[in-house]
Amino acid sequence: MKDAFFKTAARSLSFGFSGAPLDRISDKREDSGFVAALRERSDARMALIARDMPILPRGAASRDPLFPLSAVAALGGARFEALLGIDSRGAPVFAASLADGAVEELADLSDGFLDRRMLIVPGRDDLELVDLRTIAVQGLVSAEALAILGQAKAIVHWHAHHGYCANCGAPTRIAAAGWRRECDACKAQHFPRTDPVVIMLAVDGDRCLLGRQARFPKGMYSCLAGFVEPGETIEEAVRREVHEESGIDCGEVLYFASQPWPFPSSLMIGCLAQANSRGIKIDGNELEDARWFDRAEVTAMFEKRHPQRLSAPNPMAIAHHILRGWAEGAGSA
Amino acid sequence: MKDAFFKTAARSLSFGFSGAPLDRISDKREDSGFVAALRERSDARMALIARDMPILPRGAASRDPLFPLSAVAALGGARFEALLGIDSRGAPVFAASLADGAVEELADLSDGFLDRRMLIVPGRDDLELVDLRTIAVQGLVSAEALAILGQAKAIVHWHAHHGYCANCGAPTRIAAAGWRRECDACKAQHFPRTDPVVIMLAVDGDRCLLGRQARFPKGMYSCLAGFVEPGETIEEAVRREVHEESGIDCGEVLYFASQPWPFPSSLMIGCLAQANSRGIKIDGNELEDARWFDRAEVTAMFEKRHPQRLSAPNPMAIAHHILRGWAEGAGSA
Repeated sequence: MKDAFFKTAARSLSFGFSGAPLDRISDKREDSGFVAALRERSDARMALIARDMPILPRGAASRDPLFPLSAVAALGGARFEALLGIDSRGAPVFAASLADGAVEELADLSDGFLDRRMLIVPGRDDLELVDLRTIAVQGLVSAEALAILGQAKAIVHWHAHHGYCANCGAPTRIAAAGWRRECDACKAQHFPRTDPVVIMLAVDGDRCLLGRQARFPKGMYSCLAGFVEPGETIEEAVRREVHEESGIDCGEVLYFASQPWPFPSSLMIGCLAQANSRGIKIDGNELEDARWFDRAEVTAMFEKRHPQRLSAPNPMAIAHHILRGWAEGAGSA
Repeated sequence: MKDAFFKTAARSLSFGFSGAPLDRISDKREDSGFVAALRERSDARMALIARDMPILPRGAASRDPLFPLSAVAALGGARFEALLGIDSRGAPVFAASLADGAVEELADLSDGFLDRRMLIVPGRDDLELVDLRTIAVQGLVSAEALAILGQAKAIVHWHAHHGYCANCGAPTRIAAAGWRRECDACKAQHFPRTDPVVIMLAVDGDRCLLGRQARFPKGMYSCLAGFVEPGETIEEAVRREVHEESGIDCGEVLYFASQPWPFPSSLMIGCLAQANSRGIKIDGNELEDARWFDRAEVTAMFEKRHPQRLSAPNPMAIAHHILRGWAEGAGSA
């Protein structure tokens, strides 16, 4: 096999929330004795999530978001835990959900786009809670730690919102080291949910289609996106979403790369799509505007010198990389 | 943009369950008056699902699985319905779930691999129920009708198993023309679940890695596969699953194509992966065997002349097409 065949690969490693350095050891999840022994190890660490936000050390030079298990006990213990995996030295890493009461909300800083609340741990001025988008955008932790926090947030969010059986309504209990929930009433098993989302750049020669949602920061345009529905391929979902949101018809679709997106539990599937029409008609529900941009304009957006101060998404998002890949030449060769 | 850039695209249209010829008109789902008017149209048709199986006309030359709405009333009415979309002439197509009591089980023909039950509609020798895998494998309906049945089965299965709120345990009610469930108790909204699954062929030069599960038909080998988990990319999931199931380490990953897989609600994401090791160690849980096959052997499997009578998956499955694509030269150019 020639390298050229795999030339598109491995790009997803550079995006936010990917590249987690853990071996998930999923074959060990059913072995409760093994998992309990991992938990007793002195090198075991935990990512702590409270009210959907990771806890970070405050003001430290190194913002390592993984804490020894003693730290969890000092904060009142975990509501539930999940085994994320073991690191390259064999040290286990868990996610733990703290009770809402373990933290205190000082202020709601949400702006409609970012869910930013100022949360603190009462009596612990060495700790703070920061929403995961802010951690990613501001680069508060290493890329590896960001990926672990994404995994932790997704699995904790799923448990926090799936305490009951969708099939019969009875309470469910956690199993398989945090990777399953079981219903004793109807015997249903439930697995963590991951929602596939297509996110795509429709292109027509030297121009590409970007849209903006009302909740976006002022001036920001991005790729269109939407959930894959039952009964369609990735390529069909790309064409449907572009048509629904912008009225543009697309033909061929090319997969670009993927990204885990823990808000709360999506898998972003990045694509380029060949636009076969030009006349935009926005649906008004999802987008407040959509327009064509040429490469020079996109480059100006990246370099923050667009005449109307329009901007592109942050590098933590796959939309940035799809757009940059196209602007730098993908699709023209 | 040159065609070469999109050379990989549009392959998914030829697989089972893809290529549904409906416009989902998702922007109309919230308009209950519009949906009710569609339902009153004389050209409205329904795919009927009972006990997870589509109802087909029996013995007819044309096995059209879409029935006029009067047929549903004659069978006792629907437990619930979902709007699948409108066809190219504007005629609406719905999915309807019939009560379990509307059909009768004559025999359980399941063989561990295929869930085949002989179900009939009492008093209606013009109708029968056939499980969707059998419909696909035997080509009992057109490709377009198969895609519609896949969409219908997936959405009906989701409603049938999500009648309660996973967040609080209260009963939920159907909304958005069958594309959402709402909880009046805690106000949670629930959307149909689609589970991304990676299915991949690990390749090393002229050889590829296939495995078999104990439940497979005798002699059949196929691609490895597994669910994408929270916190990983498609590429990471491919490497993890191949390593877990076979012990083989993979490097670069190439997306091939995708397929909706309504058993019950997966999105199969087909990939090729560059194998970086050769020594197989199966996990014993998921696979009963895994081995390397060269191109000539794979071709013999397709042509049903393998010396040990080993076989490849049916063309209705994306695994068939990944394997055929590789055997016919993908990865060698």
